[in-house]
Amino acid sequence: MAQQRDLTITGVRLTPVLISDPPLLNTQGVHQPYTPRLIVEVTTAAGVSGVGETYGDTRYLELAKPLADALQGCRVDDLNNLPILAALVCAVPEETSDAVDAGGLRGVQTADKLLLSVVSAFEVACLDALGKTLGLPVHALLGGKVRDTVDYSAYLFYRWAEHPGGQGEKDDWGDALDPAGVVAQARRLVREHGFTSFKLKGGVFAPEQEIAAVRALAAAFPEQPLRLDPNGAWSVETSLHVARELGDILEYLEDPAAGTALMAEVSAGTDVPLATNMCVTTFPEIAEAFAKDAVQIVLSDHHYWGGLRNTRELAAICRTFGVGLSMHSNTHLGISLAAMTHVAATVPGLHHACDSHYPWQAEDVITRRHEFRGGRLNVSDAPGLGVELDRAALDALHRRWLEDDGTFHERDDAAAMRKAEPGWVTRRW
Amino acid sequence: MAQQRDLTITGVRLTPVLISDPPLLNTQGVHQPYTPRLIVEVTTAAGVSGVGETYGDTRYLELAKPLADALQGCRVDDLNNLPILAALVCAVPEETSDAVDAGGLRGVQTADKLLLSVVSAFEVACLDALGKTLGLPVHALLGGKVRDTVDYSAYLFYRWAEHPGGQGEKDDWGDALDPAGVVAQARRLVREHGFTSFKLKGGVFAPEQEIAAVRALAAAFPEQPLRLDPNGAWSVETSLHVARELGDILEYLEDPAAGTALMAEVSAGTDVPLATNMCVTTFPEIAEAFAKDAVQIVLSDHHYWGGLRNTRELAAICRTFGVGLSMHSNTHLGISLAAMTHVAATVPGLHHACDSHYPWQAEDVITRRHEFRGGRLNVSDAPGLGVELDRAALDALHRRWLEDDGTFHERDDAAAMRKAEPGWVTRRW
Repeated sequence: MAQQRDLTITGVRLTPVLISDPPLLNTQGVHQPYTPRLIVEVTTAAGVSGVGETYGDTRYLELAKPLADALQGCRVDDLNNLPILAALVCAVPEETSDAVDAGGLRGVQTADKLLLSVVSAFEVACLDALGKTLGLPVHALLGGKVRDTVDYSAYLFYRWAEHPGGQGEKDDWGDALDPAGVVAQARRLVREHGFTSFKLKGGVFAPEQEIAAVRALAAAFPEQPLRLDPNGAWSVETSLHVARELGDILEYLEDPAAGTALMAEVSAGTDVPLATNMCVTTFPEIAEAFAKDAVQIVLSDHHYWGGLRNTRELAAICRTFGVGLSMHSNTHLGISLAAMTHVAATVPGLHHACDSHYPWQAEDVITRRHEFRGGRLNVSDAPGLGVELDRAALDALHRRWLEDDGTFHERDDAAAMRKAEPGWVTRRW
Repeated sequence: MAQQRDLTITGVRLTPVLISDPPLLNTQGVHQPYTPRLIVEVTTAAGVSGVGETYGDTRYLELAKPLADALQGCRVDDLNNLPILAALVCAVPEETSDAVDAGGLRGVQTADKLLLSVVSAFEVACLDALGKTLGLPVHALLGGKVRDTVDYSAYLFYRWAEHPGGQGEKDDWGDALDPAGVVAQARRLVREHGFTSFKLKGGVFAPEQEIAAVRALAAAFPEQPLRLDPNGAWSVETSLHVARELGDILEYLEDPAAGTALMAEVSAGTDVPLATNMCVTTFPEIAEAFAKDAVQIVLSDHHYWGGLRNTRELAAICRTFGVGLSMHSNTHLGISLAAMTHVAATVPGLHHACDSHYPWQAEDVITRRHEFRGGRLNVSDAPGLGVELDRAALDALHRRWLEDDGTFHERDDAAAMRKAEPGWVTRRW
């Protein structure tokens, strides 16, 4: 009996994988045909395994290795010590940068954030193992769900039909490069998943074209929440222009301008709520942004905030300061979607549908894909995350990573774009 | 097996008790001979019981009853829903007040705060039962301890040798009404419990006398952290005068002036860190106080912040805004001390010793009293809180409550003071 409940970590397995990704466009370039993710598995002395996932670029892998070693002999319920241990054993690169990360559009890349992004996968894996051991779903380990389903929005992208040179896997979505294409994409996402709110990744074309796309969406889906996210590609002036043009139909405008100072200027000039996953992405960025009223909604992301428990703390901070909360997404698999859904289910003040790239990911490492119904996911009450690793799929995607010559070991949307358009540089409006 | 793990609540027992309390002086008056506390027990379908405690005044009991009824059939791990359920079933009195609570010196008395004070005892009881069921200490349910011991400070009080009219239980501490008396009290507390830091409850005598007491402590215990807490009894001018006089030896000054506005004025005029358990006692008070830099240290109290999990969220907020954290105490028993120690053990940024009245409480409802060694408590790794209810002691203290004519069913330090000095009113300097 005691042995069945032993929470000691006896094994940690790190499996980098490459997953196919469609040619989705953003202000930094285009998604590569394959994007790296890291799958973390912890196993306890009782033989229980838990899984987590995070970014798979080399700098994440390099931090994950010493942490995996250090976790041997620790316990899966010893979670407050996890970031402390990570800071102790991981040689985090000294250089930090305020520049927007080339691949991820995830705001500043500080050493702490990098470390927390790694920690998050271990935290989720530990929670999964802990839940399985105790017979409790992850949401119960976070204090219990306050809702039975979690709303997600349709994540619309300008995209090409194929990757440059026909690289990578194919899909039958065709391109979406104008308002009609965006609306057609939205209709199919609604048909297949039932979404009732929409987010368009902008910053790809001139603002007038993106304004037209959002207006076309509003005409096609009247009264349904709409968002536009140019990932900081606009000046304050452009941002305010778009806010004026779309103020009557936007649920919120996401990161129109880059950085807290400019966002605060935009915020001062419009009543359209501003959301961010770029200027508030770490705890140290909160105080200034809130003091300046630079954002009205923070888009949480358990990966870079350091896990599900930190996400709940972020939610508490937002609640306390009257700032809204929703959820950001980057390319991810079903393990992270399960984690996102568990934590989202526990947060009282989650008033907006969460983002997820998941419908764009044809590949996964779990045995049963998540299915949106009415744009929602049911919150699993099974022990742990409620997902099961598909070993064959994991092995295949890991083999792809092993066999890659390094081209796709780092996500770099700008590099991918330059294959199609040599000399391409990020545009700003 | 499944039955042994059943987390469904099948019984909730509320036991109001009266516990003896010495004649400790504060700016609101004097502690009554007996003070009311409420003991909450939840029992699960598996026969596991958990305990919590909170304030026992009538207005708390009246809210606890409907919540106890509503919890039947809920689960002890369904904690995020607990305040939601409480708000639904408890008819919280409409009237709220900014006035300092007469008995507790606990800041504003809003309806939400009253409700959270009740919820806290249920949350702790649920965590205790959950931990016992799962075989995990409460700290593990909060993400795990980051330290094995928790530091407490010696809580010094001006006091009389006996209650007015010789009421209540006797003790052999004698009085402490001048610097020498305070130092003698401190020496005995150090001898008996090993404390290495000191807090003097002030606001009782004129500031010059209290300054002299703190100076005497500094002479008796050089280099050891010292605090003075007049519970908002001073003007800004007096506060700044004391800060100047004691700035070289104070760890922090606690609530010198009443309310955020005056505290901000004091803060602007001194480098002595200001702590509070009066102007920041609820989440809605945080934003203004932090924006005004009114306090540098928040003294958490799981009772009025709504439980151990809310206390951790408060800690996260303080960490994020660069505000320090320590822990407040009012008259409490060993159940709450266990709860305080568990949560304190899990908070990374707890840089100050916690307050506890516990050494002044000769009575308890647990079988083994907590013992400070070197001013510290060991963090229990036993399942749940690690305390066991002493049924005989609980029954005896409950009988005292039943047999009381109502005199002590409400804590009222001012009323107690007026028995000794008719016409007494709170003094301000």
